[in-house]
Amino acid sequence: MKQKIAVLGAGSWGTALAMVLVENGHDVTIWGNKETQINEINEKHTNTHYLKEITLPTELVATINLEEAIKDADAVLFVVPTKAMRDVSKQFNEVCQNKPIVIHASKGLEQDTHKRITEVLEEEISPSHREAIVVLSGPSHAEEVAVKDVTTITAASSSMEAAEYVQKLFSNDYFRVYTNSDVIGVEMGAALKNIIALGSGALKGLGYGDNARAAIMTRGLAEISRLGVAMGANPLTFIGLSGVGDLAVTCASEHSRNFRAGYLLGKGNSLDDVLDNMGMIVEGVYTTKAAYELAQERQIEMPITEAIYDVIYNDKDVSSTVKNIMLREHKSEQEL
Amino acid sequence: MKQKIAVLGAGSWGTALAMVLVENGHDVTIWGNKETQINEINEKHTNTHYLKEITLPTELVATINLEEAIKDADAVLFVVPTKAMRDVSKQFNEVCQNKPIVIHASKGLEQDTHKRITEVLEEEISPSHREAIVVLSGPSHAEEVAVKDVTTITAASSSMEAAEYVQKLFSNDYFRVYTNSDVIGVEMGAALKNIIALGSGALKGLGYGDNARAAIMTRGLAEISRLGVAMGANPLTFIGLSGVGDLAVTCASEHSRNFRAGYLLGKGNSLDDVLDNMGMIVEGVYTTKAAYELAQERQIEMPITEAIYDVIYNDKDVSSTVKNIMLREHKSEQEL
Repeated sequence: MKQKIAVLGAGSWGTALAMVLVENGHDVTIWGNKETQINEINEKHTNTHYLKEITLPTELVATINLEEAIKDADAVLFVVPTKAMRDVSKQFNEVCQNKPIVIHASKGLEQDTHKRITEVLEEEISPSHREAIVVLSGPSHAEEVAVKDVTTITAASSSMEAAEYVQKLFSNDYFRVYTNSDVIGVEMGAALKNIIALGSGALKGLGYGDNARAAIMTRGLAEISRLGVAMGANPLTFIGLSGVGDLAVTCASEHSRNFRAGYLLGKGNSLDDVLDNMGMIVEGVYTTKAAYELAQERQIEMPITEAIYDVIYNDKDVSSTVKNIMLREHKSEQEL
Repeated sequence: MKQKIAVLGAGSWGTALAMVLVENGHDVTIWGNKETQINEINEKHTNTHYLKEITLPTELVATINLEEAIKDADAVLFVVPTKAMRDVSKQFNEVCQNKPIVIHASKGLEQDTHKRITEVLEEEISPSHREAIVVLSGPSHAEEVAVKDVTTITAASSSMEAAEYVQKLFSNDYFRVYTNSDVIGVEMGAALKNIIALGSGALKGLGYGDNARAAIMTRGLAEISRLGVAMGANPLTFIGLSGVGDLAVTCASEHSRNFRAGYLLGKGNSLDDVLDNMGMIVEGVYTTKAAYELAQERQIEMPITEAIYDVIYNDKDVSSTVKNIMLREHKSEQEL
């Protein structure tokens, strides 16, 4: 049945997901806070800064008015950067008049609180303004979804009914949605893989090859799982789409902005130069800090996260820091 | 301490491993059965067909005489194609006069018997001619090892003492060896990942993107684990170097011959043309048949293996067969 959906956030991922929803026949409004961009979407049916060379469907309506975007919405999809999530949720809570299903597709941990996005949404949106919360995550470059390449993704919620609603909302021939009940695991996998992508990019920038990349992905998965399980995740989630799958797509692809940021760091660029160069939020940079602090608090061994933290926040030399983690002494695989 | 080591098999991987052993100061003889190639290694210090543009160390001696190669060897490393393993082990058993540690670094399952390589070695080499058997496996393109790129790999054996011996033999600054006691898991992961690499290559050949590749890797890992566990492996092995790691390096790299073979199949080439074009053994083609038959026998669900089998052995259309597996109906991740 046709649903009315608000997509909050007009970046590449929000726009690509809005396109899937329009394709599936829903009534979709996308909200953003940059007037020129919103006008471009409405008038030219493009969103050039985020999705070059893509023509948007004419049915996709954009607005800078949040109240207008969410009016009578059956579902609201939050796809704003992690650091804007609390503020946008607050605004939403103030103007919301009904009780939509809340979905989010952002990947990060809140910087100071170290909270997952679902936790932020729960804190800021009153239960009278939301049904269950569902997280949508998995290996999915926006650029490929926008051109209808086959993509598989997970909808996770503590309410299986809500997860199945989201599955139905998004599923079509090229966009395959699987349900999962492990919200913590899916959110932790989504957030933490960006750190490993920074590391993988740095390796490439420093001239290491595919063997080294496979090593960092394998060890990265192990440290993601360690912290995830400590936070309450099901370990099996990490061998699924938001663990192995998301790592695979992020650690080895030119489309991944976290990988590209890591690559530029590996090439010797300063963090400021890298962030200027990207022109988009690099979530991994913020997630590294949150994950590092969580690991310290809980005494979880996360050598890759520590190394990336040292490079980004302690101005350590990228070459020797990365070399150190590659050459760390370990004897058996079980220790990894 | 300096060891005398015979490397049986002068392909790219045997040669690269022999180079690591020479680097570590051991006395290494490489055996092959093609006289021109053996002469090239001894006289020109190159092995051009297998490792283009690589100069071999002058200390590396090659021979076509098996008895000479293994005389007084402390360890013998088998790196021949899976289909030659039984025959070479037999020859070895006939001429061997002492009792070396047996190591193998081949990746496959024997075609008709479906046996792992360790099982073949155990059957063919009398206990009076061997100490423990150790398998060496992990994410490692020979081309990168030959130029001393950082590589991590697993040495697995039922004898931890033997695994640690092999670890010591090969370890250096760029070649990191971890021990593992799960021989079955390491061998199954090593063999089966080549099937997923064929599938991943076919996806690319057919024009699918990185999101689809991440999906096939994730599902591939699940089916590798299902069959592996049914054969007695520890499920945790598959999130290690010879599971996730080896999949990562094989499914997304130009260096992988299985990936390249899959790519050519995806582009519509016939199997015969593909194999002619490669000029090296594509283990995945044979492993697909063995794994398919094992899965049938044991009623294990292996949709990717079945699809690749259908393309290779039943002449099914690659485009529709691959599309079918990408669009298979599943509702929850737990079902995968």
